Amino acid sequence: MPVGTQGTVKGLSPHEVAEVGSQIILANTYHLMLRPGEHLVAAHGGLQGFSGYQGPFLTDSGGFQVMSLGHLRKIREEGVMFKSHLDGREIELTPERSVQVQQALGADIIMAFDECPPYPAERDYIQRSLQRTARWLERCLEAKTRPDQALFAIVQGGIYPELRDESLALTLPFDTPGFAIGGLAVGEPKEELYPAVAYTAARLPANKPRYLMGVGHPEDLVVGIALGVDMFDCVYPTRTGRFGYALTDQGRLNLKASAARTRMEPVDADCDCYACRNFTQAYIAHLLRAEEMLGPRLLSLHNIRYLHRLVERIRRAIAGGELDSWARSWGEQYFKGSLPGWYAQALEEARQV
Amino acid sequence: MPVGTQGTVKGLSPHEVAEVGSQIILANTYHLMLRPGEHLVAAHGGLQGFSGYQGPFLTDSGGFQVMSLGHLRKIREEGVMFKSHLDGREIELTPERSVQVQQALGADIIMAFDECPPYPAERDYIQRSLQRTARWLERCLEAKTRPDQALFAIVQGGIYPELRDESLALTLPFDTPGFAIGGLAVGEPKEELYPAVAYTAARLPANKPRYLMGVGHPEDLVVGIALGVDMFDCVYPTRTGRFGYALTDQGRLNLKASAARTRMEPVDADCDCYACRNFTQAYIAHLLRAEEMLGPRLLSLHNIRYLHRLVERIRRAIAGGELDSWARSWGEQYFKGSLPGWYAQALEEARQV
Repeated sequence: MPVGTQGTVKGLSPHEVAEVGSQIILANTYHLMLRPGEHLVAAHGGLQGFSGYQGPFLTDSGGFQVMSLGHLRKIREEGVMFKSHLDGREIELTPERSVQVQQALGADIIMAFDECPPYPAERDYIQRSLQRTARWLERCLEAKTRPDQALFAIVQGGIYPELRDESLALTLPFDTPGFAIGGLAVGEPKEELYPAVAYTAARLPANKPRYLMGVGHPEDLVVGIALGVDMFDCVYPTRTGRFGYALTDQGRLNLKASAARTRMEPVDADCDCYACRNFTQAYIAHLLRAEEMLGPRLLSLHNIRYLHRLVERIRRAIAGGELDSWARSWGEQYFKGSLPGWYAQALEEARQV
Repeated sequence: MPVGTQGTVKGLSPHEVAEVGSQIILANTYHLMLRPGEHLVAAHGGLQGFSGYQGPFLTDSGGFQVMSLGHLRKIREEGVMFKSHLDGREIELTPERSVQVQQALGADIIMAFDECPPYPAERDYIQRSLQRTARWLERCLEAKTRPDQALFAIVQGGIYPELRDESLALTLPFDTPGFAIGGLAVGEPKEELYPAVAYTAARLPANKPRYLMGVGHPEDLVVGIALGVDMFDCVYPTRTGRFGYALTDQGRLNLKASAARTRMEPVDADCDCYACRNFTQAYIAHLLRAEEMLGPRLLSLHNIRYLHRLVERIRRAIAGGELDSWARSWGEQYFKGSLPGWYAQALEEARQV
């Protein structure tokens, strides 16, 4: 899912999001409740009418953003008191309020309000937090009144298998239509991230989508899907595009580098996106140097398309029963030779599932 | 003509330029010769291959930009020595060099290298300058070798009818395929601009395009066309769009104003552009406040489309023999009541032609 933090995928028009093959956009509850406010979005008939993107939306709960506010927020059993980063206004976000706002925003998939500890955190804190997350899940489900929205629960527990087990035991009985693997991708090294993803994904129902929140570099998609993840979101393709980088099978290509200024070939000759079909690297490099909007736009477009094409290739490899060998050969190209330990190890675990 | 200073119309993709109805883009020789350099553009087969816009281009001569550099440039009979605004490098731009660069850029219409005095300027200086411009025109035509490019001459003379006559007498004999009305729109009030435009346009051949350089507010198009002008260029629609303003028949609409935040209607219910068909003013106002690229993009798109629709309406009014009454009633709406003196006076002059 490309991320449309403020109700727009940065740099793309809604019809372009559909054209590059995106099937769903993530929007941020925290940002939209502060500005323009959920009531204005609701007056447009929800996010689709507001943003002009006619496909499905997912909203996060706002939890991750308010937790990240550091000294600007206070977490209690009732919910989180925080100060708006826009105007310092004091606001309370509770499970009930999060659901209420997400109902007004009107996404197709909404997320439970969870407490997400940072990395590293005390094991005790992580345990108290996963227990609170389960109590909050119950409150979210009680507050939910719209039958046309699917609420996904979030499994916590950091990198500790026994805490993941505890969280799974508290969460699975609610039998929500999808489950997110939460409390990860918050700073832990990949060596610790993927064993936790593998452990959790393997214990989630096979017939419901598994969503790894906030993750989405190319290598994460390959390994995550191998481990059984179905959904991802990340600002990476658009953010790295705005910074002048293009995603390719050979790694990240820096279009601000001097060498790009005279390259007469497209970013990726195999890519079918608008940027690769119509423009040379030299032109995109010129746009970046001239600080023209079209430069970041073309790279954001390409990068999202690259990830969708990557997933299409992974899907074909799965269908052909050759995911493991495909992922190894893709990785050798991408990492320029030898696979990182965490990547090889995750593929090994995936083979055993 | 929308302006693509650096080989891109700010905020628009080339296919969007075509979609809003633009038939030709202006690109700036000065900017492109400095970065990325005309050779790189030529290596792409010219501006079309470089920029991805497949329609016609017009390049200016670079003269206006180098003249505007103030203390960074020195004008001599040979040409203009100037320091690049990018890196301070000393560069000479002569009539021959301007044509050479414009041939490398490969536009369909190229412009003679002229000396354009600022406003106000001494009458004597304006006279010497129009004479030099005529000598430079001859040098441009001698330097020109590509038969597939049309070189337009530029008539100078400021706001003085007798100097306009002198420039016309020196310029018309070259019988170039089009003529620009130059040395105007450089700071003079509209009360002085339009009599000079009227005077010059009336004395240019009826069977060749007349181009009023650097002009293009909505009211300028109405009055300019009434006075016989065929071509305009201006950064106004895209620049004012980036600043948060939308062009409408009722004048400029400020989308950054508080009131816009809750307006559920489009910018212009009569407009067929992508912005007006898909988004409310409230959404665009949100994008501007959130500093999302899509906001300036939608307004740039709308503003260019507005000008093209305006010209279509002017064309219909001309065909129906009712330009004068149409221009009056449009002006009453646009200026909210009474027509400014210069506008009414220019329409009066147009009636007498």
